[in-house]
Amino acid sequence: MIEADGNRLMHVADGAVRPLAEGSLAARLAALRAALARVIDTYRPDEAAVEETFVNRNPASALRLGQARGVVLLAPAEAGLPVSEYPANLIKKSIVGAGHADKNQIAAMVRALLSVGAVSSFDASDALAVAICHAHHRATRARVAAFAREEER
Amino acid sequence: MIEADGNRLMHVADGAVRPLAEGSLAARLAALRAALARVIDTYRPDEAAVEETFVNRNPASALRLGQARGVVLLAPAEAGLPVSEYPANLIKKSIVGAGHADKNQIAAMVRALLSVGAVSSFDASDALAVAICHAHHRATRARVAAFAREEER
Repeated sequence: MIEADGNRLMHVADGAVRPLAEGSLAARLAALRAALARVIDTYRPDEAAVEETFVNRNPASALRLGQARGVVLLAPAEAGLPVSEYPANLIKKSIVGAGHADKNQIAAMVRALLSVGAVSSFDASDALAVAICHAHHRATRARVAAFAREEER
Repeated sequence: MIEADGNRLMHVADGAVRPLAEGSLAARLAALRAALARVIDTYRPDEAAVEETFVNRNPASALRLGQARGVVLLAPAEAGLPVSEYPANLIKKSIVGAGHADKNQIAAMVRALLSVGAVSSFDASDALAVAICHAHHRATRARVAAFAREEER
């Protein structure tokens, strides 16, 4: 969770939802959604962004990942938030200036960009990276739209 | 949607949720969940059953399917229903006595088993087949549990 005020970005919170080890798939998906709904309810964000999943070669893993990802996209959409998606290499490029970067590099740049001393986990710094990427692209889209409106006059 | 009274099965309703053609993935998943929530709210079922997805060779398709499937499992779980999953060949075996059957055979047996003249689509008869399979296995599980309780005395 970050706050964007023009070009200024501020860290609000970070964390990771850990899936339940037990229970049916349906129950674990319900727990995932409940956890995301609590986060949304606590921080009341205006927008959400999710990384576009890298599809690996194993269809069974892709199906499992898809099931969780569907719920991750659903939770903010049902709370009325616009949900943007960004490919992993664009996110990395927004943060470290290159499409390839390891988790340590991402974490270090995220801490620097948000002026925060520590982030709770690599998953959390990856999530903050998605938020930062969205903030950059959102600002660019707004400038492009404003320029287009000027041109029309 | 079926009603099971001992071995007697009755048709209650059938249909298919068609995804929106437009909108973001997140918005389409939210529409899917809303449609399922309306069905659950209308008929107030006690239990739900979902076919275990056949994972094809294409990981990108598996991811897309998984995203929708996660929402399909979530909707009944959040309404407090136990959700059972059955592999496709077990469902076919429960209906036509063989692990392989085409959609026409499934539809014909579903109509016969539920004494119903017509079903709205092949998707709907496939869904009724999952419900029938669940009713059979549920009854068997209940008998096994009752027998185990008898033995304990």
